[in-house]
Amino acid sequence: MKFDATIRQRIIDAVDAGFDDQLAFTADMVRFDSTRGNEAAMQQFMADALRARGYAVDHWKIEVDDIKDLRGFAPVEFVDYAQAFNVVGTLTPKEVKGRSLIINGHVDVVPPCDTDRWTTPPFQPRIAEGRMYGRGAGDMKSGLAAAIYAIEALKAVGLAPAAPIFLQSVVEEECTGNGALACIQRGYKADGALVPEPFGASIMRAEVGLMWLCLDIEGDPQHASAAFQNVGANALEKAIHIWPFIKRLEDEWNARKVNHPVYKDHPHPVRVNLGKLAGGDWVSSVPAKARMEIRLGVLEGEDLAAIRQEIRDRVAEACAADPYLANHPPKITFHGFMADGYVLEPGSDIEAAMGRAHETVFGEPVTSSISSAVTDARYFGLYQNTPSIVYGATCGLPHGIDEYVDLESLKQVTRTYALFIAEWCGLEPIQNAGAS
Amino acid sequence: MKFDATIRQRIIDAVDAGFDDQLAFTADMVRFDSTRGNEAAMQQFMADALRARGYAVDHWKIEVDDIKDLRGFAPVEFVDYAQAFNVVGTLTPKEVKGRSLIINGHVDVVPPCDTDRWTTPPFQPRIAEGRMYGRGAGDMKSGLAAAIYAIEALKAVGLAPAAPIFLQSVVEEECTGNGALACIQRGYKADGALVPEPFGASIMRAEVGLMWLCLDIEGDPQHASAAFQNVGANALEKAIHIWPFIKRLEDEWNARKVNHPVYKDHPHPVRVNLGKLAGGDWVSSVPAKARMEIRLGVLEGEDLAAIRQEIRDRVAEACAADPYLANHPPKITFHGFMADGYVLEPGSDIEAAMGRAHETVFGEPVTSSISSAVTDARYFGLYQNTPSIVYGATCGLPHGIDEYVDLESLKQVTRTYALFIAEWCGLEPIQNAGAS
Repeated sequence: MKFDATIRQRIIDAVDAGFDDQLAFTADMVRFDSTRGNEAAMQQFMADALRARGYAVDHWKIEVDDIKDLRGFAPVEFVDYAQAFNVVGTLTPKEVKGRSLIINGHVDVVPPCDTDRWTTPPFQPRIAEGRMYGRGAGDMKSGLAAAIYAIEALKAVGLAPAAPIFLQSVVEEECTGNGALACIQRGYKADGALVPEPFGASIMRAEVGLMWLCLDIEGDPQHASAAFQNVGANALEKAIHIWPFIKRLEDEWNARKVNHPVYKDHPHPVRVNLGKLAGGDWVSSVPAKARMEIRLGVLEGEDLAAIRQEIRDRVAEACAADPYLANHPPKITFHGFMADGYVLEPGSDIEAAMGRAHETVFGEPVTSSISSAVTDARYFGLYQNTPSIVYGATCGLPHGIDEYVDLESLKQVTRTYALFIAEWCGLEPIQNAGAS
Repeated sequence: MKFDATIRQRIIDAVDAGFDDQLAFTADMVRFDSTRGNEAAMQQFMADALRARGYAVDHWKIEVDDIKDLRGFAPVEFVDYAQAFNVVGTLTPKEVKGRSLIINGHVDVVPPCDTDRWTTPPFQPRIAEGRMYGRGAGDMKSGLAAAIYAIEALKAVGLAPAAPIFLQSVVEEECTGNGALACIQRGYKADGALVPEPFGASIMRAEVGLMWLCLDIEGDPQHASAAFQNVGANALEKAIHIWPFIKRLEDEWNARKVNHPVYKDHPHPVRVNLGKLAGGDWVSSVPAKARMEIRLGVLEGEDLAAIRQEIRDRVAEACAADPYLANHPPKITFHGFMADGYVLEPGSDIEAAMGRAHETVFGEPVTSSISSAVTDARYFGLYQNTPSIVYGATCGLPHGIDEYVDLESLKQVTRTYALFIAEWCGLEPIQNAGAS
């Protein structure tokens, strides 16, 4: 069969015809509170959904021991993997004629921030104003659903990808990336990868690196009334003392962008975020301990071991400036992200294919963008030498309150995915339906 | 009967003879985790213990509605009073010959700070090095036990107080004082009050006032990677911005002591303590909210409404200095303590009686001290015009790790209590035992 304008239009029409079903499926996904440690039910749903659509399903529990020695492993602390399941659905063609494709999306979501401030509850998806609201509606359940429904649209016109599709529904994207890593360990590899993150209908040229830092500070607790007598040390005040020393790294690291081929044009690629701080168990007691957790963006190309040393040095500098901390330095734990940055080199076949699909749908050439966030794309790009495309719908307020995905962008991007898959993988008729 | 040296010695000997039992009873008390919201089992134990020792027991649940309009009420937020029981045991003489006495102690304890850093678990009392260690061993279960065993010592020599004793085992001392207030509302009143807090064998001349402040700060949460684009506001960073504005009040308020008849000689009566801070639910999200809780000491004699206004003004000043906070000021809640300071005017009969008992036991005159903490003594002193004595054993590390009570001081103070009660209330023989 010829991949001509007629067939392209039939595919686009099929995406549109299936869009209501696609939204219903997306909403079903959003209803799961699949925050870290609570992902198992969500992944059972995904396994069932893929099986019902003809995929051969691999559904397994991630074991730290299986992946801990692999490149790209991120340390796991303070949590267990009791609910950390991955699902991969494989579609195998009757005859391989095109290029195989990994489609990798994550179903884990970040917590709702402040449930009380959502217009409607975060895990009760709501469609209004051309958007679907809900935690994960944008980041990134709608993306995974879009990829699934792009393939369903091909089927609706009697076609199937003519190369293997590995549809990976993973966890741990929001904290480590170990879900994507476990897919690699499991043996999955393809000619290209698509990560349908909702970064907009643009090719992500690069993403930053990232690490999480945890500082555990021990105070010297006392009755609040006695603590003035040169005794006692307030763990929270010590955390507050340390924070600006760490925060200063943001400006220092951003200053290094001038030498970076890609990030030199980004206004502020590296962001250091005080993500969590908690200390004290009684208002009238001097806090005995505080835990401060920080996200540190890292410029692409930086050596993570050197970055860790910079952080340790900065903590040591903060401690040297405080008599108590000098003798009671905090415990430093690097847990969660330990992510290298990633650049998709221009000129790949997969980028060209996505560009043609985009231009067909949008009527204009695709642009590229650089990100101050991270995605799982780095795993395939860095550790499997597989060009990885991040391209998706438009999400508003990811990690915020009233997160949403824009539905018009979602429909356009689903059309683009369908055309891209058709070109990249090739097409074959399903049974007799599409014979011509 | 004559309260002479012979009878005094018999009483002291009886205290000593009962001291092992007293320690066992104290240890039984310490085994209860009677932190706020968990006091009911402890109070059931106290009710049973008093009933077994011949007290008429009044055991009731505190209702906020019963006390909320009374002077000295402290606002109750974030908690309920489902476990907030008081116990009062009353001993009534056959014939009233002396002066009645309230003995008021609290069984609520503050949380353990950091259980892992205790030498042995905080609710497993341990005797070593002449001390009993445990949360509440000092503050103040040993004090309440000492008062009970002082009376048991009188009984052991065949005597009983010749005036009513109201032994009040209360809750809420560590956060509001509403337990003591509920005793007043219940109708208990006496000629004097003893609060056996472990401030040492010295008469507390004065205590400061106190309030708790809670600031709820709303951030503008975003994905950490996007927050540099002049959008987003980190609730934790906003809390950190506000804190020094509040902390400055400590020095300003301490400076006012120069005009205070009692506190002018205290090195640092007012203490502002950052007791709790918590914010953020995900390391890679900009925190949506933070709650900061602060203990603010108040110089005795200050008007609490004026102090609250000073605090509000200071928060407003902090907000004016930050563009985001200027439009999103924190919610201010005064919860917990709303305590006036209290001075025990010199020259009372009850202080003289305690002084004589002290001198008999210690062989030297009693001293007085001024406190930068608060006790429930203020309720009887301020709102019932009942002179209230705070005098007790020596506690180490109250509210800290490895809190303890010094056992030699505890024995001496128990002797003192027994002699003081004997003098203040007078004595009468029990049945035939002490007839002479």
